[in-house]
Amino acid sequence: MIVTEEQMKETLLILFQNFGFQKAQAKILAETHTQSTMDGVFSHGINRVPRFIEYLEGKLVNVDVEATLESSIGAIERWDGQFASGVLNALKCTERAIDLAKANGIGLVALKNTNHWMRGGTYGQLAAEKGCAAIMFTNTQANMPPWGGRESKIGNNPFIVALPRSPTNVVLDMALSQFSFGKIDEYRRNGKQLPFVGGYDKEGNLSNDPNQILEIERGLPIGYWKGSALSMVLDMLATVLSGGQSTSKISRQAIETGISQVFICIEMGKFVETDLQDRMINEIIQFTKDVERLHPDRPIRFPGERSASLRKRHRNEGMEVNDEVWNKIRNLTYSQK
Amino acid sequence: MIVTEEQMKETLLILFQNFGFQKAQAKILAETHTQSTMDGVFSHGINRVPRFIEYLEGKLVNVDVEATLESSIGAIERWDGQFASGVLNALKCTERAIDLAKANGIGLVALKNTNHWMRGGTYGQLAAEKGCAAIMFTNTQANMPPWGGRESKIGNNPFIVALPRSPTNVVLDMALSQFSFGKIDEYRRNGKQLPFVGGYDKEGNLSNDPNQILEIERGLPIGYWKGSALSMVLDMLATVLSGGQSTSKISRQAIETGISQVFICIEMGKFVETDLQDRMINEIIQFTKDVERLHPDRPIRFPGERSASLRKRHRNEGMEVNDEVWNKIRNLTYSQK
Repeated sequence: MIVTEEQMKETLLILFQNFGFQKAQAKILAETHTQSTMDGVFSHGINRVPRFIEYLEGKLVNVDVEATLESSIGAIERWDGQFASGVLNALKCTERAIDLAKANGIGLVALKNTNHWMRGGTYGQLAAEKGCAAIMFTNTQANMPPWGGRESKIGNNPFIVALPRSPTNVVLDMALSQFSFGKIDEYRRNGKQLPFVGGYDKEGNLSNDPNQILEIERGLPIGYWKGSALSMVLDMLATVLSGGQSTSKISRQAIETGISQVFICIEMGKFVETDLQDRMINEIIQFTKDVERLHPDRPIRFPGERSASLRKRHRNEGMEVNDEVWNKIRNLTYSQK
Repeated sequence: MIVTEEQMKETLLILFQNFGFQKAQAKILAETHTQSTMDGVFSHGINRVPRFIEYLEGKLVNVDVEATLESSIGAIERWDGQFASGVLNALKCTERAIDLAKANGIGLVALKNTNHWMRGGTYGQLAAEKGCAAIMFTNTQANMPPWGGRESKIGNNPFIVALPRSPTNVVLDMALSQFSFGKIDEYRRNGKQLPFVGGYDKEGNLSNDPNQILEIERGLPIGYWKGSALSMVLDMLATVLSGGQSTSKISRQAIETGISQVFICIEMGKFVETDLQDRMINEIIQFTKDVERLHPDRPIRFPGERSASLRKRHRNEGMEVNDEVWNKIRNLTYSQK
């Protein structure tokens, strides 16, 4: 079904109000989920909404509280997310990190007791829109074995790096797993093998068979031992800086909640004029793209480029949303309460 | 040949003075190269010394200058490395980032016109010793194709994350290539295939044959498209923040010099007491290690653990240095000048 930007925003605005959010918060949530979908991240945009509603119904996400400042030292702040919406908490903390960066050149906000931030790129985009570079990360429940182990003990801890650039910001938004389980399931549904190993089978062998991997849900870190180590240190930083829960603690719960995040912003306009900055970034992009392609029809892209072109297309043509997902959302919006 | 810590330090102290360093600087360099070797990183410790001497002889590294502060805004500083020793420049900038973190909670130093920092973990260790967490990275010459391309256009841009912990700091020190060319060459010398694909053959296929990969020296980023994207954004940050050269510019030179680096330090003792911090980190380590092993004889390690145990062993037993390397260094030290 084709859904336009306006239709999606309007529907979600009503939906989120139905489930207890004030209009201002519901509007922010509706816009964020719509934007992520427009940017092509359906999995953490519109497709994730039904699950978010389940979390609201299960009181795993609080609608009537806001993150609170716990302590502040210089250019660092520590916030308690109060188990409010992960999106609202992360937006708030990104804004604080931007303000700290504007005042100090660089700022860091650590957030505990929060919920899934949905699409991490949202916060990188926001920072970049305000002229800041950003380094951000979150921990998660354990969903990958550490290198050399059999059971999942480390999270895929999404990691964001963003830089402001005109007209298209540079935003890298990557989980530390080689493939998300959602992506692996897409290969399964299409009856295809993964192009590279993406997890383990029951015997502990690396596998590119989606059926085998999904049976035990043990993902593979990018770069094998390297991503495994990176996952550990990001979890340590998020936990110690926020004073919140580690992947270990989060994994003892049935449901992923009460996670820990870090938002670092760097004010970019102070050293370099904006158009010189764009020239420096464009020179890197140009050099990288100026390469003989392995597949002539597949262009080399910079992080954030594809999202920006999808956004434009979806704005003009609407978004092709799965019927079942959209009907469920419509039912939740117009039949209940 | 077995070389003790003291022998190595003494020899290198004389060597570096022979090639024009003042005694204080020569001592720092001797200790840094020895420490890296003790920690098991021979490739960027003792084995790298002959090449460093070549760079000194070729005037690619300046012995008689120091990095200078170019500008400063809040908790950010920008330094010009003046093409001095990469190790001395990086130590200086780490110390400045630590000072900025002590004053502001977080500090960032961007460095341009510097040389190879040898072992990146050196600077993560230094920050951690001073009670700071660290995120640091450097750009390099192009040595990997971007995802979808044939020729090398992106660097393996080593990335460091460190946290203070007693008795062993956590220090992740990883290049963004799956294997270093040095490691691939080790497989070649031993007549072995790589355990995973680690680069491209001439036809542009992924390969785990060290001979094929070394013939054209096109490495593989960790996580394929993910490491490729991460390499690009780290290069952008290092270039724009420092105002220095990008991988593109560095790659136009025959020799890698005039590179760009970023040093971020975070003061950890302000929010959390040190032993609570250790407990939080240890809880993560314990959870991760408490896993059924794929290979019972291969323990799960945290980043920095192996280096620490090698350091202890090498302190007690000396280091097994390649005869040819050590003879070359002895000749440079005692025969010349």
